[in-house]
Amino acid sequence: MTIGNLLSAHQWATLCCLLLLLPPAGARAQASPPPSQPPNIIVIFADDLGYGDLGAYGHPTIRTPNLDRMAATGQKWTNFYVGASVCTPSRVALLTGRLPVRSGMVSRPKRVLYPHSRRGLPEEEITLADQLKSAGYATACIGKWHLGHRPQYLPTRNGFDYYFGIPYSNDMDIVADLEAEGGYYNFFTSQASYDTESYHVPLMRNTEIIERPANQHTITDRYTRETMDFIRNHRDGPFFVYLAHNLPHIPLFASDAFVGKSERGLYGDVVEEIDAGVGQILDLLEAEGIAENTIVVFTSDNGPWLPFGVQGGSAGLLRDGKGTTWEGGMREPFIAWGPGRIAPGVVTELGTTMDLFTTFSKLAGVAEPQDRIIDGLDLSPVLFGGGRSPRNTVFYYRSAELYAVRVGAYKAHFITEGGYGGEARTVHATPLLYNVNVDPSEIHNIAEDHPEVLAEIRTVVEAHNRDMVKGPDQLSDVEER
Amino acid sequence: MTIGNLLSAHQWATLCCLLLLLPPAGARAQASPPPSQPPNIIVIFADDLGYGDLGAYGHPTIRTPNLDRMAATGQKWTNFYVGASVCTPSRVALLTGRLPVRSGMVSRPKRVLYPHSRRGLPEEEITLADQLKSAGYATACIGKWHLGHRPQYLPTRNGFDYYFGIPYSNDMDIVADLEAEGGYYNFFTSQASYDTESYHVPLMRNTEIIERPANQHTITDRYTRETMDFIRNHRDGPFFVYLAHNLPHIPLFASDAFVGKSERGLYGDVVEEIDAGVGQILDLLEAEGIAENTIVVFTSDNGPWLPFGVQGGSAGLLRDGKGTTWEGGMREPFIAWGPGRIAPGVVTELGTTMDLFTTFSKLAGVAEPQDRIIDGLDLSPVLFGGGRSPRNTVFYYRSAELYAVRVGAYKAHFITEGGYGGEARTVHATPLLYNVNVDPSEIHNIAEDHPEVLAEIRTVVEAHNRDMVKGPDQLSDVEER
Repeated sequence: MTIGNLLSAHQWATLCCLLLLLPPAGARAQASPPPSQPPNIIVIFADDLGYGDLGAYGHPTIRTPNLDRMAATGQKWTNFYVGASVCTPSRVALLTGRLPVRSGMVSRPKRVLYPHSRRGLPEEEITLADQLKSAGYATACIGKWHLGHRPQYLPTRNGFDYYFGIPYSNDMDIVADLEAEGGYYNFFTSQASYDTESYHVPLMRNTEIIERPANQHTITDRYTRETMDFIRNHRDGPFFVYLAHNLPHIPLFASDAFVGKSERGLYGDVVEEIDAGVGQILDLLEAEGIAENTIVVFTSDNGPWLPFGVQGGSAGLLRDGKGTTWEGGMREPFIAWGPGRIAPGVVTELGTTMDLFTTFSKLAGVAEPQDRIIDGLDLSPVLFGGGRSPRNTVFYYRSAELYAVRVGAYKAHFITEGGYGGEARTVHATPLLYNVNVDPSEIHNIAEDHPEVLAEIRTVVEAHNRDMVKGPDQLSDVEER
Repeated sequence: MTIGNLLSAHQWATLCCLLLLLPPAGARAQASPPPSQPPNIIVIFADDLGYGDLGAYGHPTIRTPNLDRMAATGQKWTNFYVGASVCTPSRVALLTGRLPVRSGMVSRPKRVLYPHSRRGLPEEEITLADQLKSAGYATACIGKWHLGHRPQYLPTRNGFDYYFGIPYSNDMDIVADLEAEGGYYNFFTSQASYDTESYHVPLMRNTEIIERPANQHTITDRYTRETMDFIRNHRDGPFFVYLAHNLPHIPLFASDAFVGKSERGLYGDVVEEIDAGVGQILDLLEAEGIAENTIVVFTSDNGPWLPFGVQGGSAGLLRDGKGTTWEGGMREPFIAWGPGRIAPGVVTELGTTMDLFTTFSKLAGVAEPQDRIIDGLDLSPVLFGGGRSPRNTVFYYRSAELYAVRVGAYKAHFITEGGYGGEARTVHATPLLYNVNVDPSEIHNIAEDHPEVLAEIRTVVEAHNRDMVKGPDQLSDVEER
């Protein structure tokens, strides 16, 4: 295909109809009146997708017409962050609305849960699914969980009525002989890494393993179809689907229809298959007539896994990637879509995945827990109102340590460290300071010119630290192997 | 403003109307029948704008709602190249449809023309303006020329009926005391660089200097207004406007309405002012009822001037910038807009500025010169037809030397060199080889794995060299100072 993203006649017609149905701009700029029923919510979470990996975010050869359409008819956020630069704690942040350090879902050297981990998300944590379930939502987790695979930690124990997916990362449970393959990194550039049988990753439905190893070639499409089935079965709503694709995390797999489709290679094939699924879901919402009462958001858990070369993604113009507290590790695409509710536009305000907990709880009419600190803030003024984000700060933790803090346009790095080797851990006597709106690539350290900004950030950090109670480490407790 | 790029009610209505007026998709996918009159053509050329500096190409904080709209309702090309990585030869390529080495408009160490240069574009060269003028077009060059400032080289001697602009770069003719400022580079980070009076750059109308120094604060807006006046005066067409903004090349200047507007700093202000001008031009075309018979394209002469830090732009995920033959130096945003003519979409096919000469000549019904090699190819199949680009190769020259060649997805670097210092000139015994569709950041050299690709590229180079006659150096002849 030479020309991509051509809108089909159907899509043009749909767009036209939507436009004609929209109230005048003045009305749309105001917050919508409370609807009779809270909206359906779909959170689509990619895995290791970088800031630069979508068409709308500047990738030259990965075609994402559906996500681009979602961005063009919804909001494209450009300063949106996750709660950690690796899988497990990032998911904790999104689902609990809290920095993962509070629940102890951070550690080092183990930064995530493994198949031999004994623990998971502490029982006392309250998830977004718990919140929405209490408001009468039907709730489903479809995709990668990674907050504990033992029975007491599974999604069905954390507010989800339904679970279909893999309990940890798709690169875990490797049965291939890593020694023969020359170690972990070499394995993922070998042919064996493309063989489902090289892994022993289980696919679960609710609490049962239904397939092992999971057929990862078809898994993205199956997640999409499970999501669509759940939507159809709960079309009268309200429902909440947390669709957490386990790709484009390595090992990369795509279905036959997508292998070789992208000009970006297998990584692009995988992203384009996820994008196609997004399109199917949006089309279904429109076909079912429930798009106007549904909010769909799309983001990813952390930046691209750069050591894996072309099997990893791209952070675009942002510095570094997964595992680091540079922008490339924690700033992600975030697209919010909700026809008639969400005013289309590009948003440069600050937001985080933790804010989704707060925003969606409020939208569902559920009070936030009062017995704990919630780090999320309500993004409704921006999503629905054309107003400002209440967020002015971002805390960049690595494991249980605060490495960097953003206040407004400025970001101070107190500690820097490469994601997976490379740059050694360095504590900076004078923090590095960047204006990340002017210098998103974090090239030009302006600490010397702006001691007053550093002083302000230090004040923010002191206030933050006063309230910080770090939870006991949940990640280091593993079985002997 | 929290939410950017909100379409106004007027814009929505316009879009709706356009959509309703469009023929069905099937019809649009075919080439349009020849219209009774060839279309008006507007080429908007930015200066030193990087691949990553527009919203639609992924910049997080530069807001370009008008160019984004142009991209969304037109074609956004992601593999589009200029003919050289610095000003003068890049402009030669666009205007003559030929690699600038053929006309000798390349040299080293002088890579561009200067106020003390004696020469300019050789008289025998035929410009796109010459071509279109011969087909009855009214032609205007508005903005930076940089193909010779002596009378015999000016736009009015090269096919343009009208000229309004500066004859060379806006950083030339520095009257500030560079020695006192610590040299050229330091000067551009000093306050003095923001003072119009620090320069002696002339503003010309046709062959007369009308202002010296040019007031650069208002120059972008004046270029836009001159363009709009020309459009109004030639609304019955056909007309050709070559609008070559001299910004965001340093020194950066914006008008009062734009200084401080952007979150990206002054560089962003400048780009946002250019974007606003694009919006005014598109609006005028629609208001005059001539949008359907006008084609507007937007691109830039070369990549960002990285040594100037936040005063330079960003190449996004591409490597390096201005002055180099890495992708960041020569791949540029390219947006083509023409309601009802140009099928909206993202285009990953290859194109170059030289192809505009050929494409627009054909569109105007003018034969290409038969007495010389024209490097341009006709992009009509992609622009108007949903077909493939005839282009499969890109030649990356630095001065008169061929440094790199792209064939299909693969790019071989025979020589690499930093743009302005840094990486020393290195001739590679085995060329570096990248698949720039898979690896647009040119990180992973795959030469060892693909000797057959290198062999194919060498064959292309040999054929290219057989026909290459390099013109005599036009840039080294300068006055004694």
